[in-house]
Parts: sequence; C-alpha cells; structure tokens
Amino acid sequence: MHRHLQLTEHGKLKHFLSIEGLSKRLLTEILDTAESFAGISEHQVKKVPLLRGKTIVNLFFENSTRTRTTFELAATRLSADVLNMNIATSATSKGESLLDTIRNLEAMHVDMFVVRHALSGAAHFIAQHTAPHISVINAGDGQHAHPTQAMLDMFTIRQHKKQFAGLKVAIVGDILHSRVARSQILALNTLGVAEVRVIAPKTLLPAHVCSMGVIPLHDMEEGLSDVDVVIMLRLQKERMNSAFLPSESEFFKCYGLTETKLQQAKPDAIVMHPGPINRGVEIASSVADGPQSVILEQVSNGIAVRMAVMTMTLGHHGGAA
Amino acid sequence: MHRHLQLTEHGKLKHFLSIEGLSKRLLTEILDTAESFAGISEHQVKKVPLLRGKTIVNLFFENSTRTRTTFELAATRLSADVLNMNIATSATSKGESLLDTIRNLEAMHVDMFVVRHALSGAAHFIAQHTAPHISVINAGDGQHAHPTQAMLDMFTIRQHKKQFAGLKVAIVGDILHSRVARSQILALNTLGVAEVRVIAPKTLLPAHVCSMGVIPLHDMEEGLSDVDVVIMLRLQKERMNSAFLPSESEFFKCYGLTETKLQQAKPDAIVMHPGPINRGVEIASSVADGPQSVILEQVSNGIAVRMAVMTMTLGHHGGAA
Amino acid sequence: MHRHLQLTEHGKLKHFLSIEGLSKRLLTEILDTAESFAGISEHQVKKVPLLRGKTIVNLFFENSTRTRTTFELAATRLSADVLNMNIATSATSKGESLLDTIRNLEAMHVDMFVVRHALSGAAHFIAQHTAPHISVINAGDGQHAHPTQAMLDMFTIRQHKKQFAGLKVAIVGDILHSRVARSQILALNTLGVAEVRVIAPKTLLPAHVCSMGVIPLHDMEEGLSDVDVVIMLRLQKERMNSAFLPSESEFFKCYGLTETKLQQAKPDAIVMHPGPINRGVEIASSVADGPQSVILEQVSNGIAVRMAVMTMTLGHHGGAA
Repeated sequence: MHRHLQLTEHGKLKHFLSIEGLSKRLLTEILDTAESFAGISEHQVKKVPLLRGKTIVNLFFENSTRTRTTFELAATRLSADVLNMNIATSATSKGESLLDTIRNLEAMHVDMFVVRHALSGAAHFIAQHTAPHISVINAGDGQHAHPTQAMLDMFTIRQHKKQFAGLKVAIVGDILHSRVARSQILALNTLGVAEVRVIAPKTLLPAHVCSMGVIPLHDMEEGLSDVDVVIMLRLQKERMNSAFLPSESEFFKCYGLTETKLQQAKPDAIVMHPGPINRGVEIASSVADGPQSVILEQVSNGIAVRMAVMTMTLGHHGGAA
Repeated sequence: MHRHLQLTEHGKLKHFLSIEGLSKRLLTEILDTAESFAGISEHQVKKVPLLRGKTIVNLFFENSTRTRTTFELAATRLSADVLNMNIATSATSKGESLLDTIRNLEAMHVDMFVVRHALSGAAHFIAQHTAPHISVINAGDGQHAHPTQAMLDMFTIRQHKKQFAGLKVAIVGDILHSRVARSQILALNTLGVAEVRVIAPKTLLPAHVCSMGVIPLHDMEEGLSDVDVVIMLRLQKERMNSAFLPSESEFFKCYGLTETKLQQAKPDAIVMHPGPINRGVEIASSVADGPQSVILEQVSNGIAVRMAVMTMTLGHHGGAA
Repeated sequence: MHRHLQLTEHGKLKHFLSIEGLSKRLLTEILDTAESFAGISEHQVKKVPLLRGKTIVNLFFENSTRTRTTFELAATRLSADVLNMNIATSATSKGESLLDTIRNLEAMHVDMFVVRHALSGAAHFIAQHTAPHISVINAGDGQHAHPTQAMLDMFTIRQHKKQFAGLKVAIVGDILHSRVARSQILALNTLGVAEVRVIAPKTLLPAHVCSMGVIPLHDMEEGLSDVDVVIMLRLQKERMNSAFLPSESEFFKCYGLTETKLQQAKPDAIVMHPGPINRGVEIASSVADGPQSVILEQVSNGIAVRMAVMTMTLGHHGGAA
C-alpha cells in the first residue's frame, strides 16, 4: 500500500510518509542526497536556491516547536517560502474538516505539506487525498511513524560506522508508544544491520514485537552487550506512575543509560537520542554529554536529511550539486 | 467620504477599505490587474519582485488564520516582507491605544497595514490617521465590509460569466450580520448586474434592505429561480438557537442549498461560498463538491486579487506585466 | 567580567549584553554604524544583503511583541533569516533545560540569539555557554539591562544635541525596577554627559543609587530644572496600589510629565520614553504628542541601532557602506 502511495510510477519518492515499503536503494539515495546538503549549514551563506518560489506548509495539528523549527530551517535554506499553520488553534476550530482545510490550501497553490498529527495515519490520509502536484512529508503521526527522525538517525550511524552490515543496534525504552522506534526498526532492517535489539520492561513492548524483526530483551546488561549503537528513547513523563511504569528513579535504575551500563557495549559504540532528553530519567548527564554521545550531531543531520527529502519529493534528485 | 479616503488626488487606489464609492472603472481595473497575477501561482517559481523590500503588516485584532494566510501568501509572492501581528494577544494588552500601536509601526517604516478587526470602521479609522506613505487594506471589519472577499467573488463570476450585464445573482443566508454580503451587493451593483436578490428569513435581513438595491425574498424556490449565480453565506453557529435562528436542521431545511433547490437556478449557474463551509448547515456536501461549485476557485482567485490590491495601493499599476 | 565576555581578543564587539564595560570608543562606533543604516528604512527597497543566509533566532522567554518586532525587522532588512521562538510556550515545557535548548539550536547552525528573559543574567549565561561562532544580543533581562534600548536613546540624543559633553539628563519614574534606566545611566556616563539626575519617590529608587553616578531627586520642579533631555520611564501598572506606589492619579500629580512641569527644562529640551506609554499616568498626551517629544524617532532609530549591533557582532564593521 504505502509503497505505491509514496512513489511515482518511475519509482521516485513522491511523499515521505513511512519507512515501510521503501527499498534499501531508495533509503541510501536519501542518505547520499542528505550528505550533499550537510555542508551547506556551515557555509558563510547557508542557502541554495533549489526550492525558490515553492510554498511549504508546516501543518502542525500537534505542537512541536523543535520539529517545526528543523523543517522551517531546512525549507528556508532551500530558499522556499514557509507557512506555519498551528491547526490546533485555528481553522478547524471554526468547524472546518481536515479535508476542507487541505482543499483550501491546495487552492492557494502550495507545494508541500509537512504534517504533524496526534492520530496515526493522518499524513497518509492527506497524501491519499491531496492534489497530484503536492508532496506530503510525515513529521510524526500518533504512535505510527516518524520517518525523517529515523533517517537522520541512519545518517548519523553511517557517518560513524561507514556501513550498516554487521552492526548490532540496541533501542532502549518505551518501544510500545514510540513512533520513532517503529521507523528506526524498519530503516535498520532495510539497510541490513546484523541485529536490532529492543530493551524495555514487558509493559513497554508491543505484543507482537518479534514479528518486527527485533530481539526483545528486558535486561540492560544483556541487551547492551557488544552493541555498536545504543539508541535511547525519550520517556513520556505522562506515562509515569501509570500502569506502564513505576517511578522515574525506578526506571532510571533499571533502564537509564549510565557510564557503567554503557561499558557492556563496544568501546567505540555511539549513543543516540531523538531529544529532548530527560536527564537522569532515561540517560545520565555524563553519558548524554560524554565522548560517545552523538546526540547533537543528530540534530545537525536532521536539517540535511529534511533538505534531502524536501528536494527529492519535489522532483530534484541531484542534491546540492 | 470613503471615495476621497480611498483614492489619491489622481483617482488611483491608495487604500482599499470598502467597495462604497469606488467606480466601475476602478473595480474593473482591480479585476484586470488580478488577472495578470492569476498565472503566477501556477509558475515553477511563484514569485515576482514587485514589492521587494516593502514591509507589510498583518494587523489582526481578530483571529482568522485563513484570511491571514491568503494575505501572507499574496505578499510573499510579491517578494514583500511580512510581519504577522496578532494584536489580540499583544501590545494593546499592555494598555497601549490603537493609535499608539499604529504610530509605532509607522515609525518602523512599514508600508502597508492589512487590518482585521471586530469593530466596523477600524480600517477606515487607521487609514484616516496613518502616515501618507502607508496604505491600508481592510481584511474584514465588524459587520461592515470585506472588500477583498467581494472582489475575489467578482473575479470568479467574471471568469465564468464573462460579463456582469444581464446576470441575476442570489445571496443566501445571514445577510443581517454579513460584511461579506454588504460588500458583494455594492460590487455587483457597481459592476452592473441585472438583479441582486437576497434570500433569508426576516430575522436575518437588515431593516432597510431595499435601499441596498436588492430584492429581498424569503423563499428559496422563488429566490433561486433562473439565477446565474448563487452565493451562500457562512452561518455563524454562535447565532444558532438564538432569537435569530431556529435549529441548524431547521435552517438547512429552509435555506440550505441542496441539489433539488439548485435546480431552480439556470442549468449553468455557479455556486459560491466565502468559506469555511458548514456542510449540511448552509450547503449540502453534494452541492459544495458538485460540478457547479466554484468554491475552491474562489480561494485561488483570492491570492491574485490580493496581489492586485497590494500592488495598486502601493503605486504599481501595471500588474504582473 | 562583562568586558571580556562581550569583546573579541581584538576588542571588537562579539556579544551585546550590557553597556557595562564597553568603552566610549565602542559605544560611539555603534552610533556611527547605526547612522549608516538609518537611511535604509526610508529607501524604496528597504534591504541590504549584509546578513544573507545568516539565521537569527528571536529567543523570547518573556513575551514582548514590540521588541521582537523591531529585531525581526532589523534582521529582515539585513536579509537574514529569522526564527521566532516563544519559549514560554514551547520546548522547555517538555522539561528541557535552557542549556539543552541552546545546544540544540547551535546544532542547527544558527548564528545569533536575541534573548529576552525575565531573569537578570540570562543573556550573559547563554553567551558564556554558547558555541564560539554564535553572537548573543540581550533584548532585556529581568531588572538588569536593556542595552539596545539605551543605545537607541543615545542615538536619538546625539541626533538632536550633536554631542554628549555638557548635557544634563533627567530620568523620571520607577528607577528601582527599570533595566532601561540602568543601561541608560551607564551609557550616558560613558559617553560623558555633564549630569544624570534620577527623579522618583524614595520607594522607587535603588538603595545605593548614588554609586551609580547619578543625582537622586524627589521633586520634579527641581529635577527638571535646566535639563537638556527628559527621559520618562514606563510605569508598570502591576506595581500600582502596592507598597511602592499610591494611585495612578497621585503618581501623575507628582511625577507625571505635563507641559507645566516641562517648562522647568531648557526650551529646546527633548522628551523621551521607551514606550509603550501610559497616557495620563507617567506622561500627559499633550507632551507625548507635543513638539519636544522625540518618542517616535526613538522607535525608528531602534531599527538602525539593532541593525548596527547585529552586523557588528557578526563581524561586519563597515556598516551599510
């Protein structure tokens, strides 16, 4: 399903909604294109005119300043015009349906929707119903997918480990509710890592986790043993003290990443986190700020990956070159 | 009064506050100029440099994401810089008067105020008191006027009917509270249509409606008979269940536009609505999405008309050419 | 301390955090650079490409539409890209620390933080901890400093009085809580005026006011006698009817600037106010709008001064030339 929706008849990226159904070749093309953009943010003039005159709409039904900011910067550095729409507080409050909002923006000749929504499937729904010339990028939908986050993670891993073959990767934390984890697992398996482990208490693992192509583990010592990459997930504090989780300190004791636990991993293992981090909850400050952390590189890479996906879906396939 | 305020001594458009007092020649010039901009939004690069370096302030004292968005896109596509000010939540809350807010923005050397305000006459007041080099566009003031909405409607009618002479137009719904209807009636009569009918229950018609140059009718069958254009108004839901209106379903039964009722109109009649639409309240979905609906064309034309008014008031009279 | 933090090893402006520690030569360089930008806002195309491709972040932890607007316009007229972040309602509400917010924005390769914060020292803290290539401008921190406001005041004084030597300046109102007054006093003394008087009830003067290099006075007649410049401060209405202040009318009677009181000053004295003004509280309308008022010139000059500080801290020292 998703494959057809996301690709043109010539197999090019039209929308970027989820990792599901995308080939290794296409994910690699995204990474290569992002690489061509990675240098631009360090230039004296941080802009290329690739999307000049294009209108990109940040259609955020759920507030996320950080994600919106990275998309806004990516669009601006491609010279596109950006329209920020916080829909939670706008049109739909006048009783307009999602589809009518989309139809109206289409009629204003916009070129791209960057969609953030609390409901899984929202970006797919919009891509299915929007005009043919418009591209849709999923900036996080419910507990379903966050594909640009997954791709910036892949970019960061490739930067440090050169290739995916042979890598052992551990994802730690609230797998059950994480759209980030879902997209990461698909991307890692498509790109051909050796092993993806998910480490969490039973209450935070999906029921059919094994069918996702991962090895579920409940113990950090065992889980981190000999891995090349440790990906910590953000713990949603609102899930604390619920049926899912004991206290913060209890969680940190079992699943928080400390220097001691990290010693189980390979000496050159990298530590990742999608941010914003809860210091002392899922990760110790000494690890977050330590020599193995690549958390801030992930943020930088996020701009390049979003520039790549924006240009590719709008039909520019040469990258910054 | 308004004539002098809106025009320069050479009869050119200086502000765009209401249709009142504007000549047929000038309204036609707006439509012709808009036509020159209509193609730009479909270009590869949707921008012309006509207003480069100009600062346009969206001065919204009343929230309206949709209207603000169309003005922002129009300004951006003319290469102007846009400053969005939501005054409801800002300066005036520090106790500053409207006039002091205006004086301060003038001192920042802005070039245009696009004003939305809940009070009738707000845009006129600002135009009367602002610096000579600044132009003011009324983006809706109380129950008084919404002239850019009226002009995009005229643009859409001319696109489909080629000329205004001989046309019969029906406006349906809450005429009493509608600034849109007031501006439409003035524009239609100035441009010389044959007949403007307003169709509403007595409680939703102004007291002296006949002096507006319209034929008031209370029955849809009679009102829509043989018309070329049907303009549905948005029903403000907050007026429901008040002295003005019975229930939504009651209103829809009498005044909602259905395929059956539409059959009274000419076979090639077009259906318009300023949006956002209340499906099943003032219009059936089958009509809103049907072959006679030009509702989304109105939205597209709104960008071109706003580009026209922005350039004309700032002294560019050649359009996109 | 501040001297080293604000300056490069070559004595150039790196951050602009407070007037404290800056030399007369450097303050004069800011004024001269601002003068080169003053004309640009009156040009047909109000833009110069000096900061094209730079990303300037308006990092506002405290809402201030007016101040944000002037920085946004200054940045836009230098062709920079502006990112508005209202942090009160964003990232930190997800529990992220200030430092993590800064680190993340750094990783997005931004070039400048314009910081507004309710806590004194916030901009200094950020400047101390941010990456070497980033410049920080203090747009008001607690009751500490508001240096761009002070410099636009100095610019306005120089415009009217040509030089600072020999001038007598009176600052009137809530000195105790005013970051504006603190920065003005430092700038006036550094630039070498003859006398700075502060006029306020005892409850609104700092304890060690004399050590600030000012003459404290409690009587307007005496205080305004023979001055060249009268600077009225904004009265924070939330301090009214507290231990600090009697009623508004009582304050106006004693410390409000009227035409009568102004007659004590030199005939060519200018009247200043940082805005927004409370008419009839700290200043009579006839004075605010009268021939000696330069309040709106201050606003205009604010854009030029902010353009100067933005270019200088980012390493452009030639101004608009």
